[in-house]
Amino acid sequence: MDMEIICVGNELLIGKTLNTNAQWIAKQATALGITVKRVTVVADEVNEIANAIREALGRKPQFTVTTGGLGPTFDDKTLEGIAEALNRQLAVNTEALKMVRKKYMAYAREKGAETVELTPSRIKMAKLPEKAEPVPNPVGTAPGVRVDLENTILMALPGVPSEMKAIFNETVAPLLRQVSGKSGFYEKSVYVDGVMESSLAPLIDKVMQDNPGVYVKSHPKGSEDKPHIEVHVSIRTDAAENAEEKLHGAVVQLSSLVGKVGGRIVVDE
Amino acid sequence: MDMEIICVGNELLIGKTLNTNAQWIAKQATALGITVKRVTVVADEVNEIANAIREALGRKPQFTVTTGGLGPTFDDKTLEGIAEALNRQLAVNTEALKMVRKKYMAYAREKGAETVELTPSRIKMAKLPEKAEPVPNPVGTAPGVRVDLENTILMALPGVPSEMKAIFNETVAPLLRQVSGKSGFYEKSVYVDGVMESSLAPLIDKVMQDNPGVYVKSHPKGSEDKPHIEVHVSIRTDAAENAEEKLHGAVVQLSSLVGKVGGRIVVDE
Repeated sequence: MDMEIICVGNELLIGKTLNTNAQWIAKQATALGITVKRVTVVADEVNEIANAIREALGRKPQFTVTTGGLGPTFDDKTLEGIAEALNRQLAVNTEALKMVRKKYMAYAREKGAETVELTPSRIKMAKLPEKAEPVPNPVGTAPGVRVDLENTILMALPGVPSEMKAIFNETVAPLLRQVSGKSGFYEKSVYVDGVMESSLAPLIDKVMQDNPGVYVKSHPKGSEDKPHIEVHVSIRTDAAENAEEKLHGAVVQLSSLVGKVGGRIVVDE
Repeated sequence: MDMEIICVGNELLIGKTLNTNAQWIAKQATALGITVKRVTVVADEVNEIANAIREALGRKPQFTVTTGGLGPTFDDKTLEGIAEALNRQLAVNTEALKMVRKKYMAYAREKGAETVELTPSRIKMAKLPEKAEPVPNPVGTAPGVRVDLENTILMALPGVPSEMKAIFNETVAPLLRQVSGKSGFYEKSVYVDGVMESSLAPLIDKVMQDNPGVYVKSHPKGSEDKPHIEVHVSIRTDAAENAEEKLHGAVVQLSSLVGKVGGRIVVDE
């Protein structure tokens, strides 16, 4: 059960915005037992978006999630990019237009107005690739979009984090949960002091070898000569009841090996 | 002058780590007049890394920068991935080995030792693809790596942010500066209150049309019905002296258009 994430936005490529959306989605999906294989960030350009989509679909991940580019301005081009990648037309989707109209009617009523103008910029948010479905946006205006393809379910989410998260929680997470079943991801971090990462390396190899399924990765937080290393142990399994025990076993062995070379383990930083 | 960034690390794909490296590099490169076209994040797997490298090289960016996977542990596989993508052998590079030995000698001397053991994990950091050059790491142990290819200069940087930044500043930035000449990126943000993003959209179109070269992008910070929108104006030019004036012109026009529809501009948030 693989996922690719495609983030659309010039602001990510000029370093203006930190890509917290990719991290958040990756964390949620991983916890639900999905393996995120790749994150791709591209600019607000139809060809760039279409290429990234086409390439992702070629790798046949079960899920492809895009963020950004669903709004009312000229630079919101994700649906155009998806349409190009799928060789489909963009057209006003009746259900999406209903969703958009309902939002603007509600905004208008708050201000005491009785009618609302569906300008081209507003209608734009309801222009979907053919055979795509709009997904309700609980906190914003632009609907999310779902396209069921032969090998992939493609979900387009907004770039505004609160809207992205709301649609993910309401629509994407239940879908992932349903597909992944009991699969889960379990993890734990300990910290190793007093052992250089280059000296820790063969100990990690030993722990990996003796604890099948457990993945052990070191993240140096100090420097090689003043080492303080986070060791992250993780396991993907559908047997939740054994996960904790397996991670614990790996940490116990690591602790013993580290002790023998004069280092020590700190469980919390 | 394009760049692609490839970040290697499972921690990025499980959402454990926020990809601050990509943002930092993108920001520096953009300020130096380089256009970052794509960021790709892949796992610590040789095939995944090799595929991402091959695909990037196929798009012929002038620079390709990788982060992560240069260290001494089993999961540090970036150089193996690069070697596979380039169809070259990995072999101990004499100069790189000298750099690594010098570091460990210095660490040993700090502790009063006179000799140092070059274990397989340490030698691993000096195994480079053929015809690659090691790049000094001013603050860590693993050298950076530079490979000059037909269309691209490929630079592999460590994933530890302090080491990545040190090598970037010392070796990559001067190279980018030399290539990009006077090219630069200039930007400014203002905030629009009281206009929905869907109503701002046609005003932005007008400003883009009347200010050639200036790119205007809206970033909603509130919600559609209680709008507070950052408007980011930017320009890429090698005429620094006119950049400020052009951005100012765009903001003045935007301010006038926004005023006519009952909104207002706030220069600082």
